[in-house]
Amino acid sequence: MPKPPTWVFAGCRDPKGQRAQELQNLASKHPNLVIVPLEVSDPASIKAAAARVGEQLGGSGLNLLINNAGIAKQVSLDNETLENMTQVYTTNTVGPLLLGQAFLPLLKKAAQGSPGSALSCNKAAIINMSSSAGSIEELYLWNLGHVVSYRCSKAALNMLTKCQSLGYREHGILCVALHPGWVQTDMGGSGSQKPPVTVEASVRGMLKVLSSLSEKETGTFLDWEGKVVPW
Amino acid sequence: MPKPPTWVFAGCRDPKGQRAQELQNLASKHPNLVIVPLEVSDPASIKAAAARVGEQLGGSGLNLLINNAGIAKQVSLDNETLENMTQVYTTNTVGPLLLGQAFLPLLKKAAQGSPGSALSCNKAAIINMSSSAGSIEELYLWNLGHVVSYRCSKAALNMLTKCQSLGYREHGILCVALHPGWVQTDMGGSGSQKPPVTVEASVRGMLKVLSSLSEKETGTFLDWEGKVVPW
Ligand SMILES: NC(=O)c1ccc[n+]([C@@H]2O[C@H](COP(=O)([O-])OP(=O)(O)OC[C@H]3O[C@@H](n4cnc5c(N)ncnc54)[C@H](OP(=O)(O)O)[C@@H]3O)[C@@H](O)[C@H]2O)c1
Ligand SMILES: NC(=O)c1ccc[n+]([C@@H]2O[C@H](COP(=O)([O-])OP(=O)(O)OC[C@H]3O[C@@H](n4cnc5c(N)ncnc54)[C@H](OP(=O)(O)O)[C@@H]3O)[C@@H](O)[C@H]2O)c1
Repeated sequence: MPKPPTWVFAGCRDPKGQRAQELQNLASKHPNLVIVPLEVSDPASIKAAAARVGEQLGGSGLNLLINNAGIAKQVSLDNETLENMTQVYTTNTVGPLLLGQAFLPLLKKAAQGSPGSALSCNKAAIINMSSSAGSIEELYLWNLGHVVSYRCSKAALNMLTKCQSLGYREHGILCVALHPGWVQTDMGGSGSQKPPVTVEASVRGMLKVLSSLSEKETGTFLDWEGKVVPW
Repeated sequence: MPKPPTWVFAGCRDPKGQRAQELQNLASKHPNLVIVPLEVSDPASIKAAAARVGEQLGGSGLNLLINNAGIAKQVSLDNETLENMTQVYTTNTVGPLLLGQAFLPLLKKAAQGSPGSALSCNKAAIINMSSSAGSIEELYLWNLGHVVSYRCSKAALNMLTKCQSLGYREHGILCVALHPGWVQTDMGGSGSQKPPVTVEASVRGMLKVLSSLSEKETGTFLDWEGKVVPW
């Protein structure tokens, strides 16, 4: 078993709300888990979260930024609107961009403080939670839902990941887009069919993938089993 | 020479302004060219433009919708903002989505009134002007400019094109994303280097590509010389 991280920060838009109850339970059991208020569609909230994390770290860096928050609107191509497109893009694509910018100093610090030059999640990394629904090649599960605003936002997030991988490589930061599988969460289970993958299996798979990432995976799009997903 | 179309409509956000002078000159020479006020970031303007075109067509359909309007912000990854991301996405991605919806009845009508079932630009088509800068695989000209908001918007536009190709296929409408080349326009020439392709060469190339499009190209991403661009 690898040694647990000194600190784990969990961003949450309503830490005192009903939906944060499980997270609060976790935090009360694990003193290294810190809940940080974070609304990813609000640039000021992102900056405040980065400041809060920096304070707690007191001079150390942050090794891993996982951009997981995401939304989907079950809407057909004919019924997409400017409002939907903008809201989904702001959360799923612009959020990860601004989080990358805000946490860059802490990620750089972690990379500088880490021995060797090879990229890895132990050094410094940004993981963007994407989706095979955002694969232009695959158009995963099109017949179950057009969700064009979601697909466009995730294709754009894949592009962002590629840009971040080039822009942040000189700072020693690895960047990868990850498809978690079709998972039994609120989002995954919002349609008429039950998703095939449990949360446990997805997370176990992704942790294994993260631990294996190196230089040659930066700027790629992988699924929870480590397979390359086409753009 | 193929017979010229009965009507050609040119959308323009400020038909009486200085920047529309050349278009006005063209229209005064070609009585089949109709200038239609169109601000592609405004849903109401898009609906009004579709109504105006429908009126002029008086019961006939529209064969070809070319989504050409686009903007780019010369900004580095570190300096992208929510405002830039949203503005560029609204114009480059949401605009083409809403234009597809608004002109769908006219495109359907053209497809229905056209003999045979094979897709083509003579029957009914949507052409989205994309860019190799939006190819996640190529990241064309990264070293000349990050333009992350632009790249994300065009990757999303490619996704939209793929979605439209599936959603509108049953209506007989072909959908393609097109890279015009790196062209000597205001946008192409906004950096420090002169683009290699003249407007004439780009347009001649694209017209040839359009005339060759069939069933098997719907949902693809092609350049002005007809070559496939990777997603
Ligand atoms: N489940 C799948 O099958 C699947 C497949 C492919 C990709 N993904 C991706 O995986 C990621 C996690 O999805 P999930 O299935 O766990 O979805 P979920 O069950 O809907 O959970 C989404 C989480 O994101 C949070 N969130 C949403 N908008 C936010 C905002 N503006 N600020 C802060 N937090 C926000 C939500 O917070 P609240 O609790 O406050 O609502 C919630 O905790 C997403 O990026 C999703 O696109 C999921
Ligand atoms: N030039 C290149 O090298 C290149 C390469 C790849 C892709 N492209 C794409 O090709 C397309 C045409 O680009 P271009 O080089 O001709 O660019 P450009 O010289 O900047 O012209 C863009 C045109 O779009 C119009 N426009 C912008 N925003 C609009 C809005 N909200 N509503 C209505 N019209 C709007 C502008 O109108 P105004 O005159 O009123 O400003 C202008 O006529 C774009 O989609 C661009 O992304 C160009």
